Amino acid sequence: MNERYERGLRKLTEIDAEAVGNIVANLQDIAPDFARYLVEFPFGDIYSRPGLDLHSRQIATVAALTALGSASPQLKVHIGGALSVGCTREEIIEVIIQMAVYAGFPAALNGLAAAKEVFARHEARGKSTSSI
Amino acid sequence: MNERYERGLRKLTEIDAEAVGNIVANLQDIAPDFARYLVEFPFGDIYSRPGLDLHSRQIATVAALTALGSASPQLKVHIGGALSVGCTREEIIEVIIQMAVYAGFPAALNGLAAAKEVFARHEARGKSTSSI
Amino acid sequence: MNERYERGLRKLTEIDAEAVGNIVANLQDIAPDFARYLVEFPFGDIYSRPGLDLHSRQIATVAALTALGSASPQLKVHIGGALSVGCTREEIIEVIIQMAVYAGFPAALNGLAAAKEVFARHEARGKSTSSI
Amino acid sequence: MNERYERGLRKLTEIDAEAVGNIVANLQDIAPDFARYLVEFPFGDIYSRPGLDLHSRQIATVAALTALGSASPQLKVHIGGALSVGCTREEIIEVIIQMAVYAGFPAALNGLAAAKEVFARHEARGKSTSSI
Amino acid sequence: MNERYERGLRKLTEIDAEAVGNIVANLQDIAPDFARYLVEFPFGDIYSRPGLDLHSRQIATVAALTALGSASPQLKVHIGGALSVGCTREEIIEVIIQMAVYAGFPAALNGLAAAKEVFARHEARGKSTSSI
Amino acid sequence: MNERYERGLRKLTEIDAEAVGNIVANLQDIAPDFARYLVEFPFGDIYSRPGLDLHSRQIATVAALTALGSASPQLKVHIGGALSVGCTREEIIEVIIQMAVYAGFPAALNGLAAAKEVFARHEARGKSTSSI
Repeated sequence: MNERYERGLRKLTEIDAEAVGNIVANLQDIAPDFARYLVEFPFGDIYSRPGLDLHSRQIATVAALTALGSASPQLKVHIGGALSVGCTREEIIEVIIQMAVYAGFPAALNGLAAAKEVFARHEARGKSTSSI
Repeated sequence: MNERYERGLRKLTEIDAEAVGNIVANLQDIAPDFARYLVEFPFGDIYSRPGLDLHSRQIATVAALTALGSASPQLKVHIGGALSVGCTREEIIEVIIQMAVYAGFPAALNGLAAAKEVFARHEARGKSTSSI
Repeated sequence: MNERYERGLRKLTEIDAEAVGNIVANLQDIAPDFARYLVEFPFGDIYSRPGLDLHSRQIATVAALTALGSASPQLKVHIGGALSVGCTREEIIEVIIQMAVYAGFPAALNGLAAAKEVFARHEARGKSTSSI
Repeated sequence: MNERYERGLRKLTEIDAEAVGNIVANLQDIAPDFARYLVEFPFGDIYSRPGLDLHSRQIATVAALTALGSASPQLKVHIGGALSVGCTREEIIEVIIQMAVYAGFPAALNGLAAAKEVFARHEARGKSTSSI
Repeated sequence: MNERYERGLRKLTEIDAEAVGNIVANLQDIAPDFARYLVEFPFGDIYSRPGLDLHSRQIATVAALTALGSASPQLKVHIGGALSVGCTREEIIEVIIQMAVYAGFPAALNGLAAAKEVFARHEARGKSTSSI
Repeated sequence: MNERYERGLRKLTEIDAEAVGNIVANLQDIAPDFARYLVEFPFGDIYSRPGLDLHSRQIATVAALTALGSASPQLKVHIGGALSVGCTREEIIEVIIQMAVYAGFPAALNGLAAAKEVFARHEARGKSTSSI
């Protein structure tokens, strides 16, 4: 446990503790160090930096993962994370729709399918997520 | 001239009239209809939608184009556009740095090189861009 | 209902009314405007343009989606669409095989798996698709 | 000199002997075997197959390389090749525009810039390429 | 049966005869020639070249397929192939972790999930794979 | 100066001190923290791990960057780095050629062009790089 790791864990609690907890648990038997890096570098180093609020950071991540189109599990985690830090569903949908311009309609369609799944899961849990 | 085109042109004036003007001019002799689509769909339809402010839209676009890594000219236009709609240089740099997490260090390095070039060009023009 | 939308719907009927109908229905509760854009821009604007016949347009789309490798649901829709507009199975297979040259053997292998699934579904429906 | 190589060379003569000749020459001192593979596999094996005419093959290649967006030199060669096998400029432009739907507007814009350059070079050489 | 095909089959026996056998069998009814190309070019031509040992070739392939992120079935085949040619599990994990630097954390996470699946399958078969 | 940074710098000296020094210098005025991350995470954390030797790590990186095709400056740095850690030119060429199988011929061709440039630069400097 070092300072970067602790800072990363605190940041993760703000975003999506459960989802990342699952990822870290899944890595324990195959690459435990990578689980540590995942907490330390993206969350302890990058997301903890001043200069860009968490709302904008989640907008950026949802945009990038939708555009790349090859990281569906991570896109779903970060759509959930966007809800957690206060992005509205409408904002998330808008970001994904906008990706049709930069990465094509299939990327946006697949991103919308991911959002639909995440939104439904949130509702099933009775979570009161941000209203549209 | 239709409603979508006019709405797109107004939106473009808020973002980066000069850069997009150059793009549209370059298309006149080879694909003038595509110049029209470029105004109508991305700007007249998408960027003109409510539900996400222009600041967040530019954050999303800079993120996606940095992550994709294959559209350097368009990334530069939208870094300029991000400055125009009020993103600070610090916010732009943060978005690009964050892409190291999602698309790798080379994508972030090439994004930072693009930002450096755009910032320098803005200074050379004596434009008072957003302060860090 | 505007002119672009109506033209797009007519074009879609030529390509794959059922598949796109499903996509549009799926979008109704999450992003109904995007369903409209999907009809208007790709099909009302682009596919309706003169200068390239639908046969060549489907060849181009199957090639691109096979090469990108990140849009499997859309690739399957457009393999079905290629059959609908008169491409033979042999032509579709040839396009996908050719992508081994430009995007690698895995892209072609995954494209062939998609084609196999679409061809089998067409046969199960008793559709007399183009013979090889 | 084997049968595949000879068949590949004949096919290349139909497409763009000069451009591929340059590529092969460039490879002689660094990877001469790869120059041979380039003639044998893509052109001796794939492009020589029946079942898809050269016109459709060039449509497919221009589509894929525009969509991938990371192979500008090869896209230019194949835009030239498309002209050589009888694709009109209009058809080439249509294929590239269509890629905005599947890979985003930046991919199409960069593809159009490549086409503009190739068309200009053809005109400078006094070649009477296919008219629009 | 030609020389390249026979050489390719021998090379495949060293890497992962079963997995590639399945792929070739799957192609028989849809694209039998592509099954032949798959043996001839990648394995008969490329993997059979001197100058790079099979261990390094599998390191390179696992790296590339992890980074591309769009060819999960082929990545799994080549993780198995890496074990077959004597790469240790530790080496495979290290290569995949390293891809976080070049293609982002999601690419590495999805690569690790693929490795976990392949390693578990190998253990279930009672194969004594390379120890970590 | 922390332990990870120092370890990263030592590792970089083994790979390509000059090239990375230039990158770090270029970042000083725009994103100095990113220069620090670049030393700390890829080189202080990842490349310094046991379990995979530097030779294999450079093979993996050259493979991935050739396959991705969108990071030409970084590919050149790591081709130079591969020479520094003892990869022969022949091994580097083999890795790049192999990428034709996984990412297509254009990716391999552009990788070979990068290698040609790096090899020529090394010769011009009178460096006795690894012999073929």
